[in-house]
Amino acid sequence: MEIEIWSDVVCPWCYIGKRRLEKALAGFEHADDVEIVYRSFQLDPSAPTVPTETVAEALGRKYGGGAEAGRQMVDRVEAVAAEEGLLFRHHQSLRVNTVDAHRLLHLAREEGRQADLKEALLSAYFVETENVADHETLARIAVGVGLDEGRIRAVLASDEYADDVEADIREAASLGATGVPFFVVDRKYGVSGAQPAEVFGQVLERAWSEAHPVLQMTNGADACGPDGCAI
Amino acid sequence: MEIEIWSDVVCPWCYIGKRRLEKALAGFEHADDVEIVYRSFQLDPSAPTVPTETVAEALGRKYGGGAEAGRQMVDRVEAVAAEEGLLFRHHQSLRVNTVDAHRLLHLAREEGRQADLKEALLSAYFVETENVADHETLARIAVGVGLDEGRIRAVLASDEYADDVEADIREAASLGATGVPFFVVDRKYGVSGAQPAEVFGQVLERAWSEAHPVLQMTNGADACGPDGCAI
Repeated sequence: MEIEIWSDVVCPWCYIGKRRLEKALAGFEHADDVEIVYRSFQLDPSAPTVPTETVAEALGRKYGGGAEAGRQMVDRVEAVAAEEGLLFRHHQSLRVNTVDAHRLLHLAREEGRQADLKEALLSAYFVETENVADHETLARIAVGVGLDEGRIRAVLASDEYADDVEADIREAASLGATGVPFFVVDRKYGVSGAQPAEVFGQVLERAWSEAHPVLQMTNGADACGPDGCAI
Repeated sequence: MEIEIWSDVVCPWCYIGKRRLEKALAGFEHADDVEIVYRSFQLDPSAPTVPTETVAEALGRKYGGGAEAGRQMVDRVEAVAAEEGLLFRHHQSLRVNTVDAHRLLHLAREEGRQADLKEALLSAYFVETENVADHETLARIAVGVGLDEGRIRAVLASDEYADDVEADIREAASLGATGVPFFVVDRKYGVSGAQPAEVFGQVLERAWSEAHPVLQMTNGADACGPDGCAI
């Protein structure tokens, strides 16, 4: 069974939804047979590589009221994150571009380290308030999950995997996703948003039973068997 | 979409069922995306390689009344075959072993000629009343559908593919088949017996829509989009 997860590294509901899916998987009998693939999505392709403001400042500028008002806007998401054991400092997170982080996630997928890199990037951004657009920061995080430093730097110095990032974003649109997180199970069931673990659990059970059906038989008499043919 | 067909070369309902499935496929919009795999089934593994009697004689001996009674027993199947455009002379067909024919069908599958060989063997047996256990006959038929004569003779002189024949038969049993023809679509839908083309058509439509689902969505509010995150 395959779960594709479209998400962005700077998307708070994506990290919360990831924890809720993980909770559902912990209670799912066939979790060992589930493969998770992270797909790229960019919420804000216009965000700068060199950050100029925090998320709270950006929100306060956009909606009025300054950094304090911006901070209040992320209060609820920080409270919900805490319920999932995630100590966000999202108001202090920097508004940055994520295309390079996504390119590294494609490299990591090829090397079988994608799940670890995804978790490390989300934690770096939301808990440690690191700049996940900075190449030195990205390289340190990617080395930390076991990727080869030479390959990491070669990817960062080029536009390698940029096509894959674009293809993922196009595919999300073709599947009807307008936001993230967006979970797709076996290309049959879609879950949008950070829904409760129970919802993920129900979708997992339904997808599993559909992927492992008891043969639905239509029986007819005109056949041959060990004792002869219908005459 | 994959249709696996368990059948035997000497099974009259298998040939009739094949025509009915073909009729259904002719009216099926996605027929070009359907792959058919013929799987082995032996109705009578004890049948001799060198034939000693016709099907009519064998039936008359088994059920009493001699060849004439045996011929009457196949009357209906010959009449039904005629309705499908198949001019069976099944009463004159020879009671023979089919393991070698099945081994060649496995070779033909590897060479992309299985459908042609299956049709040629069924026609040879039911219409031409040929001995489909005879190696010269088998070689001529297999050469006729484009298989390499050297490979054909090497397979016939060995027990190559015998394991595959056995594996197919075991798999039929594990799927609950006690006779043939036995059709399995995408390992989800089973059809036993030579059912009307309409039945095959319905199963094809159902299997197709299940294999190409519209994503079934569960939508939630806690997500991020181009205009920001739920707060």
